[in-house]
Amino acid sequence: MEKNNETLSVLRHSCSHIMAQAVQKLFPQAKLAIGPSTADGFYYDFDLTDGYAFTQEDLAKIEEEMKNIIKQNLVFEKYEVEDVDAKIAEFKAEGEIYKAELLEEHRNDNPTLYLTKDKEGNVLFNDLCAGPHIPNTSYIKGNAIKLLKVAGAYWRGDEKNKMLQRIYATAYWNKEDLQGYLTFLEEAEKRDHRKLGKQLDLFSVREELGGGLVLWHPNLAIVREEIENYWRTEHRKRGYVIVNTPQIAKSKLWEISGHMDHYKENMFFIQKDEDSDDQFVVKPMNCPFHILIYQANRHSYRSLPLRMAELGTVYRREKSGALAGLTRVQGFTQDDAHIFCTPEQLVNEINEIIDFVSDTMKIFNMNFEVELSTRPESYVGELANWDLAEAGLKEAMDKRGMQYEINEGDGAFYGPKIDFKVKDAIGRTWQCATIQLDFNLPERFGIKYQDKDGSMKTPVMLHRVVFGSMERFHGILIEHYAGAFPAWLAPNQVTIVPISNDKHADYAEEVYNKMRAKGIRVQLDDRSESMNYKIREALQQHKVPYVCVVGDKEKESNSLAVRKRGVGQVGTFEVDEFINKLLDEIQTKGVNEIGK
Amino acid sequence: MEKNNETLSVLRHSCSHIMAQAVQKLFPQAKLAIGPSTADGFYYDFDLTDGYAFTQEDLAKIEEEMKNIIKQNLVFEKYEVEDVDAKIAEFKAEGEIYKAELLEEHRNDNPTLYLTKDKEGNVLFNDLCAGPHIPNTSYIKGNAIKLLKVAGAYWRGDEKNKMLQRIYATAYWNKEDLQGYLTFLEEAEKRDHRKLGKQLDLFSVREELGGGLVLWHPNLAIVREEIENYWRTEHRKRGYVIVNTPQIAKSKLWEISGHMDHYKENMFFIQKDEDSDDQFVVKPMNCPFHILIYQANRHSYRSLPLRMAELGTVYRREKSGALAGLTRVQGFTQDDAHIFCTPEQLVNEINEIIDFVSDTMKIFNMNFEVELSTRPESYVGELANWDLAEAGLKEAMDKRGMQYEINEGDGAFYGPKIDFKVKDAIGRTWQCATIQLDFNLPERFGIKYQDKDGSMKTPVMLHRVVFGSMERFHGILIEHYAGAFPAWLAPNQVTIVPISNDKHADYAEEVYNKMRAKGIRVQLDDRSESMNYKIREALQQHKVPYVCVVGDKEKESNSLAVRKRGVGQVGTFEVDEFINKLLDEIQTKGVNEIGK
Repeated sequence: MEKNNETLSVLRHSCSHIMAQAVQKLFPQAKLAIGPSTADGFYYDFDLTDGYAFTQEDLAKIEEEMKNIIKQNLVFEKYEVEDVDAKIAEFKAEGEIYKAELLEEHRNDNPTLYLTKDKEGNVLFNDLCAGPHIPNTSYIKGNAIKLLKVAGAYWRGDEKNKMLQRIYATAYWNKEDLQGYLTFLEEAEKRDHRKLGKQLDLFSVREELGGGLVLWHPNLAIVREEIENYWRTEHRKRGYVIVNTPQIAKSKLWEISGHMDHYKENMFFIQKDEDSDDQFVVKPMNCPFHILIYQANRHSYRSLPLRMAELGTVYRREKSGALAGLTRVQGFTQDDAHIFCTPEQLVNEINEIIDFVSDTMKIFNMNFEVELSTRPESYVGELANWDLAEAGLKEAMDKRGMQYEINEGDGAFYGPKIDFKVKDAIGRTWQCATIQLDFNLPERFGIKYQDKDGSMKTPVMLHRVVFGSMERFHGILIEHYAGAFPAWLAPNQVTIVPISNDKHADYAEEVYNKMRAKGIRVQLDDRSESMNYKIREALQQHKVPYVCVVGDKEKESNSLAVRKRGVGQVGTFEVDEFINKLLDEIQTKGVNEIGK
Repeated sequence: MEKNNETLSVLRHSCSHIMAQAVQKLFPQAKLAIGPSTADGFYYDFDLTDGYAFTQEDLAKIEEEMKNIIKQNLVFEKYEVEDVDAKIAEFKAEGEIYKAELLEEHRNDNPTLYLTKDKEGNVLFNDLCAGPHIPNTSYIKGNAIKLLKVAGAYWRGDEKNKMLQRIYATAYWNKEDLQGYLTFLEEAEKRDHRKLGKQLDLFSVREELGGGLVLWHPNLAIVREEIENYWRTEHRKRGYVIVNTPQIAKSKLWEISGHMDHYKENMFFIQKDEDSDDQFVVKPMNCPFHILIYQANRHSYRSLPLRMAELGTVYRREKSGALAGLTRVQGFTQDDAHIFCTPEQLVNEINEIIDFVSDTMKIFNMNFEVELSTRPESYVGELANWDLAEAGLKEAMDKRGMQYEINEGDGAFYGPKIDFKVKDAIGRTWQCATIQLDFNLPERFGIKYQDKDGSMKTPVMLHRVVFGSMERFHGILIEHYAGAFPAWLAPNQVTIVPISNDKHADYAEEVYNKMRAKGIRVQLDDRSESMNYKIREALQQHKVPYVCVVGDKEKESNSLAVRKRGVGQVGTFEVDEFINKLLDEIQTKGVNEIGK
């Protein structure tokens, strides 16, 4: 068996067996649930029937025990369960009720066990499992496995079931790869937007408020305002119109759209008024509203494409366990747009959206990967339009030399889709922009345009987001920048520190007022703390891009001693010179960065 | 009895009796409900028991009959009902069930009737009524009364009751005053924001969507964007921080705030998730969220005042009959702010808000009147703080020589209030800005700040809006400007019209691109219509501020022949010169208006 990235999941799955074996040795009361490999490692869910909770020390002990097991050079062996009833009875007798339940469920799938045997052929561990596994434990390096943390997990992810204990761990083919991953984890931990959100006073989520509902504190609201300003300006420049629509509406709209059939459980329904039969919902998406606005006017091929955009706030019910920070929420603002066009205009529209996404991500120094999902077996709309659309999507991407993966047959029944997966500063990918073609909604709402020949035709509709969700994108940005926002986004762009409050406060305030009048977000730190403390706090803790120190020399020469975050001293500038340079940096969104 | 503005309501109330008398003469099946005077006239509600609906012609006939009645010089006479039961029985026998119901209700209030008698003393009409009335019908001028329209109205305003027919009318002491009012009505009709909203493609409200929920079309969304930009810039300049908070949250927050006790029926409740006991609501106001953000940090007297602002969208359940256009809605965005301050800072904060409102309304050329509502008998908070606040409010207004009315004892139990009533271009007043002091919510949420002496104290909270509701304010703006928005707000600022599409299209497009690159909202009208038609359509129908006509002469001299809305030709400008002048007009919000 080759040791490479493809087979890493086999290694990890085998490690999860070893971990379970070690746990049961040290904690005989532990009953086993499931233990799969994941993108970054593996986990196993345990029911410690006596209510004991794993500690961090236990993880170290378990890891040690795993190393002992590995050394025994055990083999993994597949075993077909022939007498399912007998095996179920056996599981039950051992108290392995979860395994019994799983086997019952898979009784007709030719279920197999994997046995972990010693040299003498004794079975030291067995687990219901489809495999595959590594041949034997010599494939596992003791210094390339790491138990990471323990967390609660409901059996089958259902809040109504018992809460089990999940041990997260990882394994690599060698020590170096593990070390690389652990360094990455440490970096990711430092960048955790929930931690930075608190440290930099960016946002909060509160139990009193409800899960997954975000309070944007002033600091992050500034970042958002800048990004929204960019968003609006770019949309107008690219020929979009912008609209505003309400957050609640009659559910009838989603009956027409078809969402009530398959999206109901994610929707917040409003209690009916006793005087009326109308059912209202909190909107889970903006599309029906944009269609209503489309309907408010007559359209011809000449007035298309109609590109309609909105920063539309939507609400989608999620399981409370799935909620976290800004990236898993119940309420979020989509930077949504719907483009109504003729089939002939489709390719050009897609091209322009790819331009838009591409130009935008460049500003944040983010690359992206692209996935194209094509026509599934069952679909709506004209085959010719599907072919045109898919060919157009490919052509558009090919022409610009874009790499993309094709997920054949993975598109929605109503149209093909392009997903953009953005890469952040430490290489993680995040789903952000999407382009979804829709041959269905225009039919369902019966919207039309008059074509050249005078006939009334149904337009194609494109759903499109660039950032995806503002909440999510800001979570990504915080982690991408590790909280150190570039000057154009930074909540506080400059902190002015007088060397002596007594002697330089006047000059500091003069500079402060000058910057403020130019629209620079500036603070004057005249607290009675030491100069160095203030500089360190501003640059390191508050992650302010620039600190301007002013003392006798600066006052005399009408200048500023400028320190840059992450760099240090970048020189002394005349006040107006620094202001102009900073405004240029802000205006060019960092292209003309000071001292770069 | 003097004939003046104060006694106008007496005249109108008497006219409503005359109208009812006329209706019953012409439509004997009509039963009477109520007929009060209003700010602008009077009305009477009738139950035409046979289901007949009044026509416009009927109104003319009724008016004619009223004139006949007036000529008979009848007198109004008060009559005390002694035997209430007998009178109720009499009303019932006549089918006057509404009067019977009202009398039953007022049986212990010394109920009176007013009789309308002829010279011989015959009672021609009688109505349950507290008076007063004019002595006789010679006070009414036949040419100074006007029946205006008929509309449906539920008995007692309750949708569960029968729908009655309400005739709206007005009366003045003399013909000239009536004529002035009718001219005003005509002007108001022309400015009706619902009519202009359709004509200028500004917004729509749709039955499919639900009552009082507004779709902002691209044109009005632009106006709003400009106003929001102004709003944000001004807030930052004035030391506010801006936040964003969600539209839904647990109802617990409004239990703490106390709104659940007295505001419940205006709140939209969300159906509970079967897995949870948490009750969520769609927010009817932003205050609790801002308090949560206040709580996220520790505060000292040095960090106050904290001025926290949000364009917060709220939803309040209203009776569907009360909904209209942008001014009576169920969903609206408040330009909300909450100021947390020490009692000592209160007067200064109020002063600054008055400045803000005053500066803002000046931009729209709107004056305002002010009303101060003071401490009611039952109140919360320290008497000293109330006194300080009320004295401060008065001092602040006196100092700037502001006129204001005092509504003694009319404040909320939790604090005094200032209401700003804005006057539009045709003299109508609209409630917009308010400042509401609040000694209550900070106590209920237990928020604190550390004072100079180290002790923890409760801050005072100010609720404040400048525009009130964005929906409502835009409705007012549309009517104020009669749809002709000043250039800085106009959805389309310039229309370019080539004299000949063949010969001047290139030059027209060059100018168009130049303007667009400068951020001017410009359209190029190259349809095959006549030049005059296009100019008229742009200036008059679409109310575009400027039309630039380009022909041979303009092309040669790189210039534009400029026509201004409501003015006509204002001269020929070099292209760059016009662009700069227009940008200056936009940037100064009309202070440097072209050709003014």
